Amino acid sequence: MALRRFEHGGNVYAHAGCVDFSASLNPLGVPQSVREALCDGVDAFGCYPDPACTELVRALAAFEQVPREWVLACAGATDAFARVCAALCPTRALVCAPCYSGYEQALEQMGSEVVCHMLSAERGFVLEDVPVAHSGASVVFVANPNNPTGLCVERDVLVRCLDRAREAGALVVLDECFVDLTQHAGSNDLLARYPNLVIVKAFTKTFALAGLRLGYALCSDAELLERLRAAGQPWAVSVPAQIAGVACASEGDYLARSRRLVAHERERLSQALAAHGLAVVPSDANYLLFCGPRGLDQELLLRGMLVRTCDNFRGLNNTWYRIAVRLQAQNAKLVDALGEVLR
Amino acid sequence: MALRRFEHGGNVYAHAGCVDFSASLNPLGVPQSVREALCDGVDAFGCYPDPACTELVRALAAFEQVPREWVLACAGATDAFARVCAALCPTRALVCAPCYSGYEQALEQMGSEVVCHMLSAERGFVLEDVPVAHSGASVVFVANPNNPTGLCVERDVLVRCLDRAREAGALVVLDECFVDLTQHAGSNDLLARYPNLVIVKAFTKTFALAGLRLGYALCSDAELLERLRAAGQPWAVSVPAQIAGVACASEGDYLARSRRLVAHERERLSQALAAHGLAVVPSDANYLLFCGPRGLDQELLLRGMLVRTCDNFRGLNNTWYRIAVRLQAQNAKLVDALGEVLR
Repeated sequence: MALRRFEHGGNVYAHAGCVDFSASLNPLGVPQSVREALCDGVDAFGCYPDPACTELVRALAAFEQVPREWVLACAGATDAFARVCAALCPTRALVCAPCYSGYEQALEQMGSEVVCHMLSAERGFVLEDVPVAHSGASVVFVANPNNPTGLCVERDVLVRCLDRAREAGALVVLDECFVDLTQHAGSNDLLARYPNLVIVKAFTKTFALAGLRLGYALCSDAELLERLRAAGQPWAVSVPAQIAGVACASEGDYLARSRRLVAHERERLSQALAAHGLAVVPSDANYLLFCGPRGLDQELLLRGMLVRTCDNFRGLNNTWYRIAVRLQAQNAKLVDALGEVLR
Repeated sequence: MALRRFEHGGNVYAHAGCVDFSASLNPLGVPQSVREALCDGVDAFGCYPDPACTELVRALAAFEQVPREWVLACAGATDAFARVCAALCPTRALVCAPCYSGYEQALEQMGSEVVCHMLSAERGFVLEDVPVAHSGASVVFVANPNNPTGLCVERDVLVRCLDRAREAGALVVLDECFVDLTQHAGSNDLLARYPNLVIVKAFTKTFALAGLRLGYALCSDAELLERLRAAGQPWAVSVPAQIAGVACASEGDYLARSRRLVAHERERLSQALAAHGLAVVPSDANYLLFCGPRGLDQELLLRGMLVRTCDNFRGLNNTWYRIAVRLQAQNAKLVDALGEVLR
């Protein structure tokens, strides 16, 4: 059952009752304060959303420690990627592979040519250099950490990429949707220095708000941000997404706790997979990529666990799997099931 | 305070505490059953939305009495219009004027040339004919009822338009977002006969779900509907929108009650405005367009009432106002305030 080209994980609807390791969300789920804010705010669902997302932008700016003028709220990271592609209509764009297929999908909708910089499995999928000048691309997509590999980008690689992109007049779209669940700092401090940098983030992952569609773009170039704003739909960010976003932004402790949990569980899970003889890519993120026998996903599905087979990621095939790091008991259940299948 | 070109009504955030006559939503608001379904469903907000909107599409098909295969759920009607424009990239499109500015905004984002068929104020803004063949347009936008005029389209005008569009190989996008709050039947029965017809509707208006972004497109051409699906974002319809949509679809009685209320209050309000010497356009909808002295909006704002000034509608200017038909007490308050201002 191969996923179609642009299909993603997280489709629990097709597999009711399964434990979902295919979507890489915060394993602690939606904070209780956010659930309460949503229930309390249900009367406001009947009004149009604030098109300027005033409260939300204020909260996001404080959360990200950037000026409000640098923040554009979007309907999920997907909406942010689509806005970049619609606003810039790049003739050619550069993506790494494997990476999240949404960049390519957004680019194809605008008729852009997509150049792939292949990351080598032999070299552990490490991004050593982004061939910006070479590619002739006017937009470059980089993910920190990358998905599905889970690897953060070395700071000097990123800075070199930004420098070269600036020289070439290219924009760098840095996907940091998962960075707040790693032990690494994000790249907000580079925004002031690089007006050709757009950082995209999403509470979808950070606070497990996948059902609400809430992402945002950060950029110090006011004119570019205005173009991104104009490229989207009015009222793109729904009232519940705005309410939840404001509530999440004051949940810094929850996030720190989530981060510690992820780091701890990721190491345990990684070691357990390796002990089962699986080839695990070292990950900084809340998910793990590993290589194993074909059909593992089907065997796990029979045991009530949904994992992401990676055959629709460029550069991977159906011997690669991505799993989310979840709570200890769930991870243990997965490890047991894997042991059973692999025996 | 002129609205910018693509600004809309309903921005209660800029005018906290005002009674909002600028957004034309069901005056009864969100049904209680829908509020409850949203609160009960808050745990599901942490999962990705079902990308196929399976339950929602089933509910919408039953509500609209069309086959499921004809239904595409969208993030509001705006998303449906954007998908049509993105999928077809029409070189030239035809809109009536005045009409909802969202058609033109979606067309401009795709670089389409927009041809305007001006409706004459002297002839009461009645749509007598759509000059499809003349225009050379490959996409034609028609609204039933039209916004901001409130007038439904005569059946034979619509059928003639569809016939001519079919001959010319053009698509007709029929905006019926407000039709369920009029006493007129919608045009679903024309879908089978005209595969070149896309009907767009939205629970945003019908059930006052403006904060949730929930619309849908109906079309009997499976291939075209698939293109509209591919032109949008994955997970476009959020979990709360899907939950609310399913709950709304069984609220037929609520809708019938809303419709009766609107018809009754619209006639009262219309007569009261006329008695104040204002020129009111006869409306079939849950809103009224009228002409009056400049600055009326500002005077009403001082009295805590937000109305829609129509200076950013093509063919209108700042002597035209649109007001929503609301509950009896609110409408009476507006009439009193108007009397005070106009005295």
